[in-house]
Amino acid sequence: MAALRQLCHDLPPPDMAADAAITNHDSQLTKPPGSLGRLEDLARWAGQWQRTARPRAERVDIIVFAGNHGVTAQGVTPWPVDVTRQMVENFRNGGAAINQIARVSGARLHVLEVESLRPTADMTHAPAMDEPTFLRALACGMQAVRPDTDLLCLGEMGIGNTTPAAAICAALFGGGGAKWAGRGTGLDDAGVRRKAAVIDRALDHHATHLTDPLAIARYLGGHELAAIMGAVIAARYRNIPVLLDGFICTAAAAPLARLNPHGLSHTRLSHCSAEGGHAHLAAALGLSPLLELELRLGEGSGAGLAIPLVRAAIACLCGMATFAQAQVSEKE
Amino acid sequence: MAALRQLCHDLPPPDMAADAAITNHDSQLTKPPGSLGRLEDLARWAGQWQRTARPRAERVDIIVFAGNHGVTAQGVTPWPVDVTRQMVENFRNGGAAINQIARVSGARLHVLEVESLRPTADMTHAPAMDEPTFLRALACGMQAVRPDTDLLCLGEMGIGNTTPAAAICAALFGGGGAKWAGRGTGLDDAGVRRKAAVIDRALDHHATHLTDPLAIARYLGGHELAAIMGAVIAARYRNIPVLLDGFICTAAAAPLARLNPHGLSHTRLSHCSAEGGHAHLAAALGLSPLLELELRLGEGSGAGLAIPLVRAAIACLCGMATFAQAQVSEKE
Repeated sequence: MAALRQLCHDLPPPDMAADAAITNHDSQLTKPPGSLGRLEDLARWAGQWQRTARPRAERVDIIVFAGNHGVTAQGVTPWPVDVTRQMVENFRNGGAAINQIARVSGARLHVLEVESLRPTADMTHAPAMDEPTFLRALACGMQAVRPDTDLLCLGEMGIGNTTPAAAICAALFGGGGAKWAGRGTGLDDAGVRRKAAVIDRALDHHATHLTDPLAIARYLGGHELAAIMGAVIAARYRNIPVLLDGFICTAAAAPLARLNPHGLSHTRLSHCSAEGGHAHLAAALGLSPLLELELRLGEGSGAGLAIPLVRAAIACLCGMATFAQAQVSEKE
Repeated sequence: MAALRQLCHDLPPPDMAADAAITNHDSQLTKPPGSLGRLEDLARWAGQWQRTARPRAERVDIIVFAGNHGVTAQGVTPWPVDVTRQMVENFRNGGAAINQIARVSGARLHVLEVESLRPTADMTHAPAMDEPTFLRALACGMQAVRPDTDLLCLGEMGIGNTTPAAAICAALFGGGGAKWAGRGTGLDDAGVRRKAAVIDRALDHHATHLTDPLAIARYLGGHELAAIMGAVIAARYRNIPVLLDGFICTAAAAPLARLNPHGLSHTRLSHCSAEGGHAHLAAALGLSPLLELELRLGEGSGAGLAIPLVRAAIACLCGMATFAQAQVSEKE
């Protein structure tokens, strides 16, 4: 764990020379200054982390990490646990939403079954993962990041995984289960109350251990959540900007922001989910979502939908004519 | 004008059989019900107006209508009028933002110089267009819509054209120049006040004629705005769903919503612009923007950026497996 902690503290900073070159070039393009709004930020962000004034978004990877959760024994989801495995099959056969979104967005989709879909321990009476398992899941995520990727989208599949996500948020930011438990894939009001109580029991049970963001990720998290954190860290070291997906994906990455205040600078939040806790979490992390489409699917779907925005931003930066080239008059 | 008015009253309704078939099919797809949020609405909308349960977004057109404005004589913009023509050249040469966005979005870009870029009359002391010119500009827009289009994006280029857009909004919805005049492509505070006063003068001058939405479009509008309205009408008759762009494009279409309460049902608002009046206008029309990226460029840029969302929505509807096909268990 000490080596991991060091890795999180030593994250490389952005390339400010690329940033300055992009700002200068952008100011010469044939548009009123600032008129491309958040696209201008996206292009600059891609260049900062790819360490170039000419960023690319040609090789885009979507990685979906799948995992199972012992806490489902506490009745936190109306879906059978077997659906995680069935949906992995569905991803492999091209039948899920993320398959269609990846195709439309021109991205490569990779699906990884973390810890072979063996469930974590039930967090209400044991740490979700022991240390070797946590580090193995995290390493699985690290190794999944390919060095030839221009842009990385992270997503997840795991029946019951809004519960560990909400538990991590409650431990990191306070507010208890009631603040962070949402409907997930379809709980009724009584179900949401039960889920909040399950989270509070887990927080109580592990209270003395929840003082450190990595411990929080291990005691309350999940295999696929740990893998997401590993992928976020590896992407930083490999100069790859990352699009985060919804509530679970963002919660998985949140401990990194607590270990290092710049820990998520190389990420952008693709969307704000309809899952209630996501807006709270985005605010707590200071992340501003690119899309608000009332999605609550996971699978990396929101991240996949944001790919064309990054592509368009980069295409404008790298493909537009300058005022001088196009012989367009400037503002008087 | 009587024939045009009749055309606006007789707009065809959506295909509710296609709608019902889509709702039924969507409920069987391998996702929690409703979890694709606004994508589900987008797919249903495309089907309603294409009149099919299997909508497509393969042939997507972006049409940018360009026009010039006599009201620029009143100092409503800091940019030289000649920039309209120069930007049309830039579009033709592939150097503008919309060229890059069209390429990334896989759309065909068409640029049309309405009335050969001859300016309208100065609305502060004459109707912007006489009746033959207004109808000719409108017909230019109608004829630009190709019947083989799956999805149509509308945009504009015209130095000074936030002024006629704001004037149309003020005449349709009240509030005067101060409510609707914004910074456009870069006015300072004094410039915005001057622009608001110019709009108020035009509203005063034509007050007795501004009782009818078509008259408002003719007295206060512009050639490219009339063309946009024509294209919106033609698309409805040709079963083509339409993505509206920013403030000017939406203002150009707004009179149609006043002529027929369902006049814009076959459109979706692609984004909410940073131009202040756009949020007011979207609210007045009951349109909910798909994107909020602080764009204020025009050219159809926001509409172009929303194309991949429609494509993804349709791809999910038409490409996803059902629970039965994928042998995925349903909610208990």
